[in-house]
Amino acid sequence: MSSWSEQILAGDPRALARAATAVENRTPAAEQLLKELFSHTGRAAVIGITGAPGAGKSSLADRLIHELRRERKRVGVVAVDPTSPYTGGAILGDRIRMLSHHADAGVFIRSMATRGWLGGLAAAATDMTLLLDAAGKDVVLVETVGVGQDEVEIAKLADVTVVVLVPGMGDDVQAIKAGIMEIADVFVINKSDQPGADRLQREIKAIQSLSTRKDGWVPPIVHTVATEGKGIAEALAAVRSFLERGGAKDRAVENWNLRLREMLRERLLDRFAGLNFEKAAEEIAARRTDPYTTIDGWLKQILD
Amino acid sequence: MSSWSEQILAGDPRALARAATAVENRTPAAEQLLKELFSHTGRAAVIGITGAPGAGKSSLADRLIHELRRERKRVGVVAVDPTSPYTGGAILGDRIRMLSHHADAGVFIRSMATRGWLGGLAAAATDMTLLLDAAGKDVVLVETVGVGQDEVEIAKLADVTVVVLVPGMGDDVQAIKAGIMEIADVFVINKSDQPGADRLQREIKAIQSLSTRKDGWVPPIVHTVATEGKGIAEALAAVRSFLERGGAKDRAVENWNLRLREMLRERLLDRFAGLNFEKAAEEIAARRTDPYTTIDGWLKQILD
Repeated sequence: MSSWSEQILAGDPRALARAATAVENRTPAAEQLLKELFSHTGRAAVIGITGAPGAGKSSLADRLIHELRRERKRVGVVAVDPTSPYTGGAILGDRIRMLSHHADAGVFIRSMATRGWLGGLAAAATDMTLLLDAAGKDVVLVETVGVGQDEVEIAKLADVTVVVLVPGMGDDVQAIKAGIMEIADVFVINKSDQPGADRLQREIKAIQSLSTRKDGWVPPIVHTVATEGKGIAEALAAVRSFLERGGAKDRAVENWNLRLREMLRERLLDRFAGLNFEKAAEEIAARRTDPYTTIDGWLKQILD
Repeated sequence: MSSWSEQILAGDPRALARAATAVENRTPAAEQLLKELFSHTGRAAVIGITGAPGAGKSSLADRLIHELRRERKRVGVVAVDPTSPYTGGAILGDRIRMLSHHADAGVFIRSMATRGWLGGLAAAATDMTLLLDAAGKDVVLVETVGVGQDEVEIAKLADVTVVVLVPGMGDDVQAIKAGIMEIADVFVINKSDQPGADRLQREIKAIQSLSTRKDGWVPPIVHTVATEGKGIAEALAAVRSFLERGGAKDRAVENWNLRLREMLRERLLDRFAGLNFEKAAEEIAARRTDPYTTIDGWLKQILD
């Protein structure tokens, strides 16, 4: 074990910060570090927070951090930022609010940019979560802005997934619910002082009544007004009731099953960095060949 | 060339419907079909429509279809539905509205479920788009519910991407804009009769003023009230001004470059279906090994 790893296990914040940067940049040193640290992970409670834009996820995360700090828990935060797929630049947006915790040594916050079409966001966020886990955080909050694919990704790395909804989000929130019903372990109806909160609760319950989860869990629905700190203790209690339900091991195995596939996909693509995608794309765009034949040829060349 | 391919090229709706099902299910027959048809693609204008939930994308698509049908254009629609990653079931939600076009033989509509964490949504939607293109559609609309990753995926398969925004969506719409600014070729401010439409336009312009696109295009901003049919002709004109700008070839090459990577990733994963992910996930969850060592071992086994 390297001294770097030892410093991280001992909770040295500077060693952790350096490691977080290495993990974000996917350096070979980061991989070596994660290999060494892995057997020391699995202790932190990883809480995923997801939901539609404007739902108040950051405010909720902020209040949860305050609550956890009052209990003297060490908290890590991985905030996944939407970003341009082409420039890689991230805009922090309303995460600025969380800066209030930056002076608190018991809270480690790292914002990550989404990695665009190449994927890898889930893998990178997982690695970051493992790092914070190894560094002795009791709780790691993983917050993602985004609906759809991103929510599924978050479910893959969290021990418990909180889906934040708000009343009156309009028509196709209904459609989104189809996607999130099965990843939500806890529903939070935020901004619940606004009209429609009770109706939203009834809608969630109606959908819940249609089917039973494999693990038998019925996700509780908590009302909050995060900006005023209302309902935060209740939200945390709901999260804990899920974590203490039993069945955590099954969830972990299921998550690792999904993550391994993602990791394998990425690594394979790395291996084939020598393929001339640009030239092939030109040939295809000009209809001188087709993509299916191109891919078949590459696979033959590499694997057979 | 098979007779099935010939029927599709001739515009036979039943052959097309059968092919769409085959493409959605990724059958070997579908791949053979797509290979045969590929050289006949590249004629349709592929219009991506994306934006946050509740923005009114379906209403806009619906009105655009009406407008295009008035011009006697043959229209294909690929509606990508959010769906449960585990059950694969899709809820059609407000797409029901589009059923009004189902009786019209000049409009072919196919809803697709997102394929969850395994990815493949973009590849499947691309294949569907190519199929409709080969079948002689003049325009293919690709509508996706979702923000974040999904928007990027849509940009990959469309000749022009329309981003639909609405006034007053709250705080972190700002953050989302970071992700969509560079994929939007046309901005539509829908529900522009609501307060805040002008402010939203100013915000978009402010962000646009900060940087110049590689291709020099400044995406126009169109105001619509889709439910009342207002601004639809203007939106279509903006789309056409982009398609007629020149530079379409560069975009096609860029898109194919991205798609090829996605296709390769998927195919590779298919090849390794024999790996015991479940057992490895159990070992990892129990911390008897680590994921990095597992993946390294698999790669060695397969590639070296």
